Amino acid sequence: MLELVLGGARSGKSQYAQSRAVDSKKAVVFIATATAEDSEMQQRIQLHQQTRPADWQTIEEPIKLANTLHAQQENNTFIIVDCLTLWLSNLLARSEEICAKETQALLTLLPSMENDVVFVSNEVGMGIVPMGELSRRFVDEAGRLHQHMAQSCQQVTQMIAGIPHVIKQPA
Amino acid sequence: MLELVLGGARSGKSQYAQSRAVDSKKAVVFIATATAEDSEMQQRIQLHQQTRPADWQTIEEPIKLANTLHAQQENNTFIIVDCLTLWLSNLLARSEEICAKETQALLTLLPSMENDVVFVSNEVGMGIVPMGELSRRFVDEAGRLHQHMAQSCQQVTQMIAGIPHVIKQPA
Amino acid sequence: MLELVLGGARSGKSQYAQSRAVDSKKAVVFIATATAEDSEMQQRIQLHQQTRPADWQTIEEPIKLANTLHAQQENNTFIIVDCLTLWLSNLLARSEEICAKETQALLTLLPSMENDVVFVSNEVGMGIVPMGELSRRFVDEAGRLHQHMAQSCQQVTQMIAGIPHVIKQPA
Repeated sequence: MLELVLGGARSGKSQYAQSRAVDSKKAVVFIATATAEDSEMQQRIQLHQQTRPADWQTIEEPIKLANTLHAQQENNTFIIVDCLTLWLSNLLARSEEICAKETQALLTLLPSMENDVVFVSNEVGMGIVPMGELSRRFVDEAGRLHQHMAQSCQQVTQMIAGIPHVIKQPA
Repeated sequence: MLELVLGGARSGKSQYAQSRAVDSKKAVVFIATATAEDSEMQQRIQLHQQTRPADWQTIEEPIKLANTLHAQQENNTFIIVDCLTLWLSNLLARSEEICAKETQALLTLLPSMENDVVFVSNEVGMGIVPMGELSRRFVDEAGRLHQHMAQSCQQVTQMIAGIPHVIKQPA
Repeated sequence: MLELVLGGARSGKSQYAQSRAVDSKKAVVFIATATAEDSEMQQRIQLHQQTRPADWQTIEEPIKLANTLHAQQENNTFIIVDCLTLWLSNLLARSEEICAKETQALLTLLPSMENDVVFVSNEVGMGIVPMGELSRRFVDEAGRLHQHMAQSCQQVTQMIAGIPHVIKQPA
């Protein structure tokens, strides 16, 4: 099953995704899209890693998410992608073309994924519209991606203060 | 029926409103509150227009929303107002007096509207509180307007990643 | 019962909390965490006070929330704490140590509170991630606090356009 987990900053998204993985009893692959560009980010990444079971495989992949998921298709692994908004941010930092190409590759791949995958993503569009054109573009792209992902995923879960709130359920 | 559609940026509000209009089989009037002040905005407006059926009537009305709705009362049209936050932003750019007068005119008119109307509006108050007094005022006014609109509308729908989530249902 | 009321700016949180207090028929203690640092804030505080019944006791407590709640434990009062995000902001303005100490004191106290308490707090993490490290820290702390509070409270209610949406119900 594919599941999209949405929520604001520190709303318990990652912890929820991890509990889903543990419950599955499967081998877990954790795909981290974060890249450590400053010390604050480095610290966040290390803190996150310490909360995860030691036997999980971690793959750092800031760009080629579809390729990385595709390579898991032969294994019956449970996959966590954490998170889509950082990935989108990495893509936009490269170029609009790479962003369009990689997001399309992901959306094209999804219907054929038979692994259980939980995609974690930040809700970023419910604040005041940012001034800069780049920020607005990021918010727009994130919203658009969430809509497409929600169509492709069988379950969509919104996290509020650590409480999962299912807004789309498997048929 | 009056319906308020709330949601973050690119959460599928406009598309949902348009699907409601198509389902109604009625003649549709689309009231656009956007004004094209820069090229980015111009582009957005054009993109939005291309997604709408050609036989819909479009009215651009950045300020006098109550008047424009009032003029539709004799026709059994389905009306989309897209969107309230841009309208509010237009009003505040004029003056506090015009803002107070026009929002009051809308709220006074609503109980007598027998057309089906879907009001689209952006959720802007769930991010960090903006620094500037003007931004804070906008966020406050938007929140207040949403509360009043939610009382006047029979249905309130929150969009999350393109998925409608009804939070107030017709009795 | 302990209840956490979350919502965006001007989403009707305070009004909902006050209606809960009125419905309880108990003596009401209103704990205000706001401090009037500028004229805009002063005005907001006065406006809020005017909407509250005259026989409610108001306590202004920007920092020592756990102490203030503890002092109410002998009285069968209904308590409103409005709001946690301002309190958190006050704590962070003092120091990280005071913030950690006071939030821990609150979370430690909660299981022993037999008063009815409604905690009002702002959803601040659903907009774009703020640039400044301090803002990011505030958003992180608020999210973390909301998760802990949601675990300690029997009911969690999200306000959307003045409409209460219960996301955790008493067992």
